[in-house]
Amino acid sequence: MDFYFIPDTCALAVHIACHEAKIPLQLREIERSPTGLRIKTTTAVPSDYMSLNPKQKVPAIGLPNGSILTETQAILQYIAWELAPAAQNGDLLPKSGLERWRAVELLNFITTEIHKAFSPLFNPDMSPKHRERAIKDLGRAFTILQDTLGEKEFLIGQEISVIDCYAWTLLSWTRFFDDVDLAEWPSLVRYRQKILQRPSVQKALEEERLVFVF
Amino acid sequence: MDFYFIPDTCALAVHIACHEAKIPLQLREIERSPTGLRIKTTTAVPSDYMSLNPKQKVPAIGLPNGSILTETQAILQYIAWELAPAAQNGDLLPKSGLERWRAVELLNFITTEIHKAFSPLFNPDMSPKHRERAIKDLGRAFTILQDTLGEKEFLIGQEISVIDCYAWTLLSWTRFFDDVDLAEWPSLVRYRQKILQRPSVQKALEEERLVFVF
Repeated sequence: MDFYFIPDTCALAVHIACHEAKIPLQLREIERSPTGLRIKTTTAVPSDYMSLNPKQKVPAIGLPNGSILTETQAILQYIAWELAPAAQNGDLLPKSGLERWRAVELLNFITTEIHKAFSPLFNPDMSPKHRERAIKDLGRAFTILQDTLGEKEFLIGQEISVIDCYAWTLLSWTRFFDDVDLAEWPSLVRYRQKILQRPSVQKALEEERLVFVF
Repeated sequence: MDFYFIPDTCALAVHIACHEAKIPLQLREIERSPTGLRIKTTTAVPSDYMSLNPKQKVPAIGLPNGSILTETQAILQYIAWELAPAAQNGDLLPKSGLERWRAVELLNFITTEIHKAFSPLFNPDMSPKHRERAIKDLGRAFTILQDTLGEKEFLIGQEISVIDCYAWTLLSWTRFFDDVDLAEWPSLVRYRQKILQRPSVQKALEEERLVFVF
């Protein structure tokens, strides 16, 4: 499956999820250029990404009909519910009952209250007061995530899910900011350390040429 | 079904979706107070909302087991895939195949690139430069939404879906800002005007004591 990514972005969540599901990947690294994103190649002419994905975002994955699927949360659900059962791991999200909805609820919480709470912090034009409030909001989301995790190994169920792949990737982003520190949430620190050791994570980091030390 | 909402918020999307699915609702209006959100009552003692929903957000809906489900995107999927088939409208989201994933993709795009692009604009501490960039990003999302809509009546399929309920609610938010104007996107203006006329929308607006004029 074609996997379009920029190293060390939210695409890493999809990257790890694919390895957990044991889906063979064709890595398509995307690079920034003055005219927009393009597919990195070893030839002189880089491939166009704009026509493939007018949204100009990563991650994206190739679908069997030649089109692509975008949006992290949608791709993660697709991997868990369409691809993983056919691959080697059939339990990357609960399939039915209330558990299914608790999973979608948590996945959306991570999308809106953690991923999207990080986003403005990358903006250099953010006012100090605005930043302070955004970091406080992010902290509240960390507290809810920690309450959900408790003393467990994974956020839902007994095995890793795509929710962990996403949450872990975002928790790694505290590296980017001097004013965001996970130390106040010891269960999340332990969780981040533990997930880092997984072969799926190590393989994805290596393929993105990343070394994380927490 | 218990429906917890604050009038004129993103909860309106769920409110409209429930009426489209013809799900009987017990309206539980939430009000802000100095100690946090509480359930409005006609008695002297307002009910506690904090213990029901520690996230202190709306919307939320009551589940058969007495707990609640939160997160707009999760609730909309739950309505379409769990409740609507048992109620009178079974087609508020495609159930399988590629169409299912295109729907989840679009729902997530609306969540992250439209809903979450609006969020910082409510913050009075936003710097002018940051605001300018955020409004530009929102405009890019409007363009993608308009390209998706084209000349069609609904965003996906031949009938209304929960995606329209959500997109329409957010498009109504341009009212809140002098510096955000939908006029540049004529198909979205037409769409917003058309959906406004639906009985489900009119009923929800009346129940939230709102009058929208576009």
